[in-house]
Amino acid sequence: MLPRGRGRLKALGAGLLLLLLLLSGLYLLSGDLAYGRLLLPSPCSRGAPAGLGAQVRAVEEENRQLREELRRWGALGRLPSERSGERDVTWGRTACSQQPTVGKCELLHVAIVCAGHNSSRDVVTLVKSILFHRKNPLHFHLVTDGVARNILETLFHTWMVPSVFISFYDADELKPEVAWIPNKHYSGIYGLLKLTLPRALPPTLARVIVLDTDITFASDIADLWAVFARFSDKQVIGLVENQSDWYLGNLWKNHRPWPALGRGFNTGVILLHLERLRQVRWEQMWRLTAEQELLTMLATSLADQDIFNAVIKQYPWLVYPLLCSWNVQLSDHTRAEQCYSEVSDLKVIHWNSPKKLGVKNKHVEFFRNLYLTFLEYDGNLLRRELFGCISGPQTEPSQTRQALVELEEDDACYEFRQQKLTVHRVHLTFLPYEPPAPHPHDVTLVAQLSMDRLQMLEALCRHWPGPMSLALYLSDAEAQQFLHFAQASEVLSARRDVAYHIVYREGPLYPVNLLRNVALGQAHTPYVFLSDIDFLPAYSLYDYLRTSIKELSLATRKAALVVPAFETLRYRLSFPTSKTELLSLLDAGSLYTFRYHVWPRGHEPTDYARWREAQAPYRVEWAADYEPYVVVPRDCPRYDPRFVGFGWNKVAHIMELDAQEYEFLVLPEAFAIHLPHAPSLDISRFRSSPTYRLCLRTLKDEFHQDLSRRYGSAALKYLTAQRQL
Amino acid sequence: MLPRGRGRLKALGAGLLLLLLLLSGLYLLSGDLAYGRLLLPSPCSRGAPAGLGAQVRAVEEENRQLREELRRWGALGRLPSERSGERDVTWGRTACSQQPTVGKCELLHVAIVCAGHNSSRDVVTLVKSILFHRKNPLHFHLVTDGVARNILETLFHTWMVPSVFISFYDADELKPEVAWIPNKHYSGIYGLLKLTLPRALPPTLARVIVLDTDITFASDIADLWAVFARFSDKQVIGLVENQSDWYLGNLWKNHRPWPALGRGFNTGVILLHLERLRQVRWEQMWRLTAEQELLTMLATSLADQDIFNAVIKQYPWLVYPLLCSWNVQLSDHTRAEQCYSEVSDLKVIHWNSPKKLGVKNKHVEFFRNLYLTFLEYDGNLLRRELFGCISGPQTEPSQTRQALVELEEDDACYEFRQQKLTVHRVHLTFLPYEPPAPHPHDVTLVAQLSMDRLQMLEALCRHWPGPMSLALYLSDAEAQQFLHFAQASEVLSARRDVAYHIVYREGPLYPVNLLRNVALGQAHTPYVFLSDIDFLPAYSLYDYLRTSIKELSLATRKAALVVPAFETLRYRLSFPTSKTELLSLLDAGSLYTFRYHVWPRGHEPTDYARWREAQAPYRVEWAADYEPYVVVPRDCPRYDPRFVGFGWNKVAHIMELDAQEYEFLVLPEAFAIHLPHAPSLDISRFRSSPTYRLCLRTLKDEFHQDLSRRYGSAALKYLTAQRQL
Repeated sequence: MLPRGRGRLKALGAGLLLLLLLLSGLYLLSGDLAYGRLLLPSPCSRGAPAGLGAQVRAVEEENRQLREELRRWGALGRLPSERSGERDVTWGRTACSQQPTVGKCELLHVAIVCAGHNSSRDVVTLVKSILFHRKNPLHFHLVTDGVARNILETLFHTWMVPSVFISFYDADELKPEVAWIPNKHYSGIYGLLKLTLPRALPPTLARVIVLDTDITFASDIADLWAVFARFSDKQVIGLVENQSDWYLGNLWKNHRPWPALGRGFNTGVILLHLERLRQVRWEQMWRLTAEQELLTMLATSLADQDIFNAVIKQYPWLVYPLLCSWNVQLSDHTRAEQCYSEVSDLKVIHWNSPKKLGVKNKHVEFFRNLYLTFLEYDGNLLRRELFGCISGPQTEPSQTRQALVELEEDDACYEFRQQKLTVHRVHLTFLPYEPPAPHPHDVTLVAQLSMDRLQMLEALCRHWPGPMSLALYLSDAEAQQFLHFAQASEVLSARRDVAYHIVYREGPLYPVNLLRNVALGQAHTPYVFLSDIDFLPAYSLYDYLRTSIKELSLATRKAALVVPAFETLRYRLSFPTSKTELLSLLDAGSLYTFRYHVWPRGHEPTDYARWREAQAPYRVEWAADYEPYVVVPRDCPRYDPRFVGFGWNKVAHIMELDAQEYEFLVLPEAFAIHLPHAPSLDISRFRSSPTYRLCLRTLKDEFHQDLSRRYGSAALKYLTAQRQL
Repeated sequence: MLPRGRGRLKALGAGLLLLLLLLSGLYLLSGDLAYGRLLLPSPCSRGAPAGLGAQVRAVEEENRQLREELRRWGALGRLPSERSGERDVTWGRTACSQQPTVGKCELLHVAIVCAGHNSSRDVVTLVKSILFHRKNPLHFHLVTDGVARNILETLFHTWMVPSVFISFYDADELKPEVAWIPNKHYSGIYGLLKLTLPRALPPTLARVIVLDTDITFASDIADLWAVFARFSDKQVIGLVENQSDWYLGNLWKNHRPWPALGRGFNTGVILLHLERLRQVRWEQMWRLTAEQELLTMLATSLADQDIFNAVIKQYPWLVYPLLCSWNVQLSDHTRAEQCYSEVSDLKVIHWNSPKKLGVKNKHVEFFRNLYLTFLEYDGNLLRRELFGCISGPQTEPSQTRQALVELEEDDACYEFRQQKLTVHRVHLTFLPYEPPAPHPHDVTLVAQLSMDRLQMLEALCRHWPGPMSLALYLSDAEAQQFLHFAQASEVLSARRDVAYHIVYREGPLYPVNLLRNVALGQAHTPYVFLSDIDFLPAYSLYDYLRTSIKELSLATRKAALVVPAFETLRYRLSFPTSKTELLSLLDAGSLYTFRYHVWPRGHEPTDYARWREAQAPYRVEWAADYEPYVVVPRDCPRYDPRFVGFGWNKVAHIMELDAQEYEFLVLPEAFAIHLPHAPSLDISRFRSSPTYRLCLRTLKDEFHQDLSRRYGSAALKYLTAQRQL
């Protein structure tokens, strides 16, 4: 009996599981289901949680103010409800008088079009401002080009914000839909793509909030989502009136804008009722209107906004006008002050001047501060769970979380283990970057740094004319400082072949090997020069390495080319332009071989005496603690991320190269010179803390065990070598 | 006719001005007048601005929830309204059913008791969290000891947040009121001081919100203030129920808490209706209750909270119970989850475990993130004006603001001029500090640093056993990193005579001379050693300087003692323990005189050749570009803050000392050694930017002009010397 009973239970269990899976599948497809709780599908549900009870009166008040405002701005005279005679058009009045509300775990959908490196940075700030205030699960629908997708996919994957879902849509696929429209706006074709959203987004998606990338939220986006419930049956687009005089056509002589209702509407913030847009055949609607207008208009001036306005002019009942504070437009000559000086709760700021934060406005400091709040805000702090809602796929793998929970806080090496388990948020190619043209012998310089080494970048750019992939360990605020630094530097801004990847700071120890792996993973040439930020390569090194790679046939030979390392203890060094000059500086005591005074073992196997005389590359053997700077194929082994802070991070990597039977070939004309700097905090800690040294030894032992597991008896020599020291 | 008319106008103007002044005086005295607008004195005023319309339903909902909650927690059975038969007691029901609201510019009052260095840091975080969400003018009433007053007065004075008003009350004067109460709580006597607020605060103040320093706001404090309007005529104290079982008396065997209503109330967040408290003779009330209970209780365990609860137990109609989310108590064994897991808008977090952020709670990461948000938040961003409300005295002097507005953004030296006009927020004595005992020849080491020099602090502490005053240029987030660094360092935490003053970062250039002035201004000894952070003094220097000051009778002689400066280019130096050792290192080329290779002129007048042989102090003459490290009286001239970034910042100061006829006396046994470091970003900029050099020259010229103005023809020599270079 028991077995059969068990079987039944199992079958029942499997059925339940299937049902659950089906339901979770539905969650992802439907925009109206609440995550974690099945709630009334809005719009007039009752029993709202405390704090959302605000809506009823707000709604009425909002409508009253809206009407007043429209009247004041002279727009009401032309309001369609008063002109068209349409009975169903309800300007700003909610269709049902009950409380429109957003359920505790209701999923809200947001669409953003984003292309290129700079817009990707903007999107992050926008998303931070939304996440900061949100109390609901969010699904971001991102229409991106390849660049933005690469950046944002990695970013959200490593950000791991609970209850945040991400979908990508290929902008290039959508471009043909709008490419035929001549357009003069600075947003280019990407602005126009907003028109295609009802077609591009999943057919099951009923509603979405569409945002420009130059938007900052100062309130909970759920309050905006709640406005959908106030749409009449015919209203399909929620928009805020334009706050400049552009569409009035009186800005200058012969200024002839596209047709619009009164002052027109701004499309930086749009509520799109997708379901109904599909029903009213939105696509034909906007296409026909655009074609018709383009007969006389030649091109759009404000991209999609011109077309949205032209459509609305023709079908005014489609629009639901939003309260002005949902899109406070800080364009030049804006009339936005009329809006924000009256309301005490500013909801959304729109930096819609081409000058962006540089716009002239007597209150710009106020708005800049709100913007900077999110620009500099530590994004890690937004990894806050929503109590009672499903977390979703963006959270850290349960394995990692479990491992973190199991860590003993009293473990002396807790910080090391914690740091290893930490998933750092990564923003790839923070600045505009163009990958180098493919070349079989090309080599990328790979290094990592934090804020205190920024001043090395210019010199490095002068010494290395080739591609670089650099990982920067920064806080969000520091990333902005870096941005300013790079933009202000003529040397840096002249380069497009240097990729800067931001790894956001978290935890007390410098994750040196994680950083190296991020930079290494983003190199686009077949070979990489694994360097450190304090080294300046010989001026000729880039060319010399490419020649050597070719001559040594590295494509068919498993080898690591060693670049001998030297150091100066001088602030200023007249950098040697040849090996001969280098040798004479060495003889004069102005240069030393690297770490000659403190840690000669790290580079001894390079055999500097032999290098002095060498005319051709020569092979050297691995020895314990060897840590040369090497050139290897891009697909070389990764660094072991367990080594954080100071100590043994390169040694382990070189050991792994040796275990994989890379030959070490020293290049006779190659060199790099280490410049002096104050010891890092990590080194200070290492020197003063016995615990630190103890933990490092534990990590070493664990590494050796792993090495034995992977390479078997071949790895024995490393343990033996270690013990002999 | 005209003159008479003008006279009349003038008189009228003067009258109006007087009236205005009188009115502003009234503003400061009355808690019920709105700043900038005269509004209905609440509680049931109508016509609330949009966004505040939330209250009606929220109120009703809140009351409903409150009753439910109390019932669930088993407290309602004992509710006074159902027991006492009092007709007027309306538990949680608003006395008037209209909309209680807070006017757009209504001034809200907040009282905080704060003593010592650590609490002062906590108060800043609390205030940041309040300011972040606030939309109203705020008046903070701070009951402080001398330490906290010194810190907070400077902090708010330099913070300059518009529409924020500060008053201080001397905790030491109030202590006798409560000193007779035996108390076992970790907050000490300062917790008890909350009982005295109705007496301590101005008699005109009608209402105040009282907050513990371990509180974090996650919502607008105006929503809490609005609850005052719902007090019945007899209710005088608003409190949240205690969220632990403490007062139920069942925590352990023989646990005997003070008497309380049910679970009792927590006093981390209190609404005090001061006006009525005075009417009901609060002072006698709590005193009698305390005396009575102390007959059997021996001491309070939870300070003021025990007494508040004992009073409420006796006079239950006094209390208005607040919704739980206004004080989510994260104590050990808290039942707070029942509160925060249901509501979606958490309003106030209370870190009331003695472990504070270290408390064990499965959601502690969530709460920590909220807390860290404000801990690391750039306080400068809170200098946001409230549109339409009077700014108040805490804003920057209109002069400075005007000067900033008049700056031409296109001026090549804009950054320099802007930096000079910037008022930096200053947090004095960020860590616990005890000034040294007065001694006529004592000397404080004065220096400044930013994050990249933290690793110098331990070595400096080892080399200088005397008092130090250090200015640290940090962001809010960096200040927290510094705090952790200092707390983790045995060397640093063993010292109480090192004062760390945080100057918060703002603008692109390092304000080196402002920092020096902050550190100099906080030295408490008669003499100061004006050093730089990269120098390590001879181990004997502190003692030697005190002896020299005495022997040279510096009290009666206007002199600057020169400490000769050397440098090493080595990472590691075996630091010389005597002049003899130093000289042999110099001869061996391990040491150089400071800037020997790059800028010998800065120290040439010190005359190192003479110093080698010198047995006694010798006088040297000023020369152009001389910039020695000197010991001078504390009241020496301040540094000129126009010099920011790199260049000429010390030179100008030494010139001023010479202009004031200080003798320069070189000490034969004194020395300090500069350790190597990477060039700062400012130096890099200086080297690469012709504009930077040009601006520096302009600043120099302006300095010379000012010097001539102040010292007349005597200053001519500096200009001549400059021109001869």
